[in-house]
Amino acid sequence: MDNSVGIVSAQRAQFDLPLTFDSGFVLPLYELVYETYGTLNTDKSNAVLVCHALSGHHHVAGYYADDKNNVGWWDNMIGPGKPLDTNKFFIIGVNNLGGCHGSTGPSSLDPATGKPYGANFPVVTVNDWVESQARLADKLGIKQFAAIVGGSLGGMQAMQWSLTYPERVRHVLAIATAPRLTAENIAFNDVARSAILTDPDFYGGNFYEQNVVPRRGLRLARMLGHITYLSDDAMADKFGRSLRSGKLAYNYDVEFEIESYLRYQGDKFAAYFDANTYLLMTKALDYFDPARDFDDNLDRAFAAARANYLVISFTTDWRFSPERSRDIVSALLHNRRNVSYAEISSAHGHDSFLMQHEHYHKVMRAYLDNIAREFTA
Amino acid sequence: MDNSVGIVSAQRAQFDLPLTFDSGFVLPLYELVYETYGTLNTDKSNAVLVCHALSGHHHVAGYYADDKNNVGWWDNMIGPGKPLDTNKFFIIGVNNLGGCHGSTGPSSLDPATGKPYGANFPVVTVNDWVESQARLADKLGIKQFAAIVGGSLGGMQAMQWSLTYPERVRHVLAIATAPRLTAENIAFNDVARSAILTDPDFYGGNFYEQNVVPRRGLRLARMLGHITYLSDDAMADKFGRSLRSGKLAYNYDVEFEIESYLRYQGDKFAAYFDANTYLLMTKALDYFDPARDFDDNLDRAFAAARANYLVISFTTDWRFSPERSRDIVSALLHNRRNVSYAEISSAHGHDSFLMQHEHYHKVMRAYLDNIAREFTA
Repeated sequence: MDNSVGIVSAQRAQFDLPLTFDSGFVLPLYELVYETYGTLNTDKSNAVLVCHALSGHHHVAGYYADDKNNVGWWDNMIGPGKPLDTNKFFIIGVNNLGGCHGSTGPSSLDPATGKPYGANFPVVTVNDWVESQARLADKLGIKQFAAIVGGSLGGMQAMQWSLTYPERVRHVLAIATAPRLTAENIAFNDVARSAILTDPDFYGGNFYEQNVVPRRGLRLARMLGHITYLSDDAMADKFGRSLRSGKLAYNYDVEFEIESYLRYQGDKFAAYFDANTYLLMTKALDYFDPARDFDDNLDRAFAAARANYLVISFTTDWRFSPERSRDIVSALLHNRRNVSYAEISSAHGHDSFLMQHEHYHKVMRAYLDNIAREFTA
Repeated sequence: MDNSVGIVSAQRAQFDLPLTFDSGFVLPLYELVYETYGTLNTDKSNAVLVCHALSGHHHVAGYYADDKNNVGWWDNMIGPGKPLDTNKFFIIGVNNLGGCHGSTGPSSLDPATGKPYGANFPVVTVNDWVESQARLADKLGIKQFAAIVGGSLGGMQAMQWSLTYPERVRHVLAIATAPRLTAENIAFNDVARSAILTDPDFYGGNFYEQNVVPRRGLRLARMLGHITYLSDDAMADKFGRSLRSGKLAYNYDVEFEIESYLRYQGDKFAAYFDANTYLLMTKALDYFDPARDFDDNLDRAFAAARANYLVISFTTDWRFSPERSRDIVSALLHNRRNVSYAEISSAHGHDSFLMQHEHYHKVMRAYLDNIAREFTA
């Protein structure tokens, strides 16, 4: 694996200062699992936080000694000589609270009951995540991030950082994201949630004790998600109307290649992802709306921001369309912030932000190289 | 109700000549339920067949004596003085085979077993429907239709008529339709089908005997359908990010207005629509592809057509996009057919074809008035 950060291992941080969520719920103590790549410099000025999206986690780059095929989800972006260069930056990936990859979440044991939180785990907001991430930064002695980077839901966290802690982030890289979801986007999330909520194996969120998993709901949620993360053109190119067996079967088994792909992705996801985590991640997406407290005025919402911004969108991303990124750019310009904007021509829809793409990676590299000039590695 | 055809009643036609489906399945006998509006002229030259889409049926216009609120699904288009003018045309609406509104379908009793067909009811194709509709036309003594009209899946039937029976249709009005679905469209259908197929109350299609209905699956299928029949802009205008209670609830109940709308529509649909019918209707959509037998060459597929065409699409219809309608127009022009094409500016997505829309109705009226000049009422 060329330019890989190599073998990595997850670390754990424990917090016993109670965290009050936006919902009012108080989490008395919690753990965050995270990974780091590169070396924190002497004045701790080269730290970059990578925030993950719906199904992401802390394993962002490299691989595990005992599982070499388990490569981080953004390994093409992070490593020695890669755009997010580990020779220059100290990079942190963290599994968000409420997640299902090691940080405290719905499947964790509630110390008050000794049973999994399940339905008792609260709805978490982007704000709540920023707060928990700030505490991790405190623990690592990082007062200010060189950059906070994220795509999709991760981009929302990066933006929120610059609003909640304007002095703690010098650059925000907000990729394939939006200042708030549209009704259509909320609608897709609600169908996915409804699939899980109405799965008889969901048991109102307390399926852990029943030793079952709402696989049907998770599978449907993921199938639907996949359609909306891809573009119509990408699907047409990759699958078209090809039939698996070459002829029509006149039944409801897998028949078209696109069906095979979707059902496979759905089954794979349902085998490992936590249903409660899926619910709360989609709710965090729906709730994010920094303009809500400012009479829906995004310009005013961004008045607090001090960071410089790189905003990136992808032409065929219809779930987080370039138009939404331009809304962000417009609000930043209104507040006389430094903002660079790139609308990348890509056929791969929303998923583009995870993919190897020359132009996209060049833009990221150029911007990040400039950031690296601001400090001494 | 101004310009209504008034009180209507359904009629039944029985067929005991076995019908062989594309799948090879032989239906020994069947019934079609239909309605007619207007008067068939002496030489039977003013007949118009209206083909329905996924959730449609034979009750296209007017209302029932015992249920005045049950107005036909295209009542805004059909009636005295309306674009499809019952003073001029004799209009037939028929519930397709496999439907759940009275024609023989999965919930009908299989004479061989005395039990509902259920899973034994075959996958039906657009071809099969055209065949069954042709037999109804024979029974009514209609040798040639003045026009065959349909939107969406109904448009596919109208097109297929002109390919299977070129001499039996003078005009095809193909609205908001496509010569074949894209991979994305098949993907949405497959998610909807998967929701039904994996509902524990589906019982492999034989739920009738269990006295249950796969409501969860039907509900999800309909919710998803609704998103794709509307446009992003229409949803933003109608619902935006409005909250039902005015504030965030931090739970998974209905919260945004769009969620309320979707769940309501889903519940309503699940209370009356047949799950097996939903499956076979979506499969008919996926299978329709007249170019399949012509090396995917649509120009060659349309070589058989003799009818004149009116093709209509709507600018914000992303599930049956204007691009697909232009494919139809292009193939017709290649074959030197008379074709009129209107791309209607509408904010309402795929659903536009069902809605009252001045420009759209003007185009329909102008075209249909010209047809009416070809015969004596």
